[in-house]
Amino acid sequence: MPLLEDLIEKLQWLPGIGRKSAQRLVFFLQKMDKVKVKELTDAILRTRLQLKECSICHNLDEHDPCRICSNAARDKDRICIVEQPSDVMVIERTSEYKALYHVLHGVISPIDNVSPDDLRIQSLIERIKSQKIDEVIIATNPTTEGDVTAFYIAKLIKPLGIKVTRIARGLPMGSDLDLADITTLSRALEGRREI
Amino acid sequence: MPLLEDLIEKLQWLPGIGRKSAQRLVFFLQKMDKVKVKELTDAILRTRLQLKECSICHNLDEHDPCRICSNAARDKDRICIVEQPSDVMVIERTSEYKALYHVLHGVISPIDNVSPDDLRIQSLIERIKSQKIDEVIIATNPTTEGDVTAFYIAKLIKPLGIKVTRIARGLPMGSDLDLADITTLSRALEGRREI
Repeated sequence: MPLLEDLIEKLQWLPGIGRKSAQRLVFFLQKMDKVKVKELTDAILRTRLQLKECSICHNLDEHDPCRICSNAARDKDRICIVEQPSDVMVIERTSEYKALYHVLHGVISPIDNVSPDDLRIQSLIERIKSQKIDEVIIATNPTTEGDVTAFYIAKLIKPLGIKVTRIARGLPMGSDLDLADITTLSRALEGRREI
Repeated sequence: MPLLEDLIEKLQWLPGIGRKSAQRLVFFLQKMDKVKVKELTDAILRTRLQLKECSICHNLDEHDPCRICSNAARDKDRICIVEQPSDVMVIERTSEYKALYHVLHGVISPIDNVSPDDLRIQSLIERIKSQKIDEVIIATNPTTEGDVTAFYIAKLIKPLGIKVTRIARGLPMGSDLDLADITTLSRALEGRREI
């Protein structure tokens, strides 16, 4: 098969890339500096081969334990539970949180055939039992599945005498009361705080 | 820089890929078979290094002259002029056209600072003068720039006594008269043919 056709087919393996965007990508790459293209493909391959799941928090990193779990400067008494490794990156970018994480790699979702056993919940419980944890902050997404997962985990952890919190829901910054949906507005009222 | 952050930054070099889609891509690649990822990165690199502009028609191919120019089975008396290499692929997929191409690599566009000298027009004229060409079919896009370029080229070629045609404009298959814009409808009427 001609190189061009072959690459256009392979690019369509990626999510959200159809024939048209694959073509656009190829011609863009063709105009890009060869050295840059090599840097990009090297980064893709290296990441795929070297990234692994941290055996403690299940985040993805080239080191195990990961950079966060092995960082002596991080507080060891709080664990923030997230759905995906990308959520760790998002929270890290706020620079607000200086403790540990636990990545579930999914949410409980009967419709997608994902049960609690498919998530990294067992290792979370063992982790909490074997270490001195003061607080577990559940930061699953504000969706039905995220909520179900949060409640499931809270029910498991609370009997261990550990404080369990959920990140706040409310109006996003810069938004308009007029445009908020009813659920968001109810949660914002519910979560009101004295100023 | 951590591998993950590094790759997410590099993926954003690509058009239409922001931080969010880059993250999604990385985690998708992470779940993909290693062998497949290697195949994909190899295809990207190989294509970037081996694809070159055909010295006759300026299409992109790993061979020079390209697969179409050097194909003895193709008719040599017609040349179809297109804007981009991707247009060649699109026309080839119709399996209707069995002659040659000429890729301009752009259109005349004063607003983008693209003049006729920036396109492969000079080599087209030389090609037409040195070979026996019966017809030049102009298949630039049905846009203002595509039309301007078509008229510019037609004006250069007609004095050479060669038939110059433009691909038809009209209602696309499966569309509705009701939904057609006025220009498309006017062109469809203008281009009417006896049945």
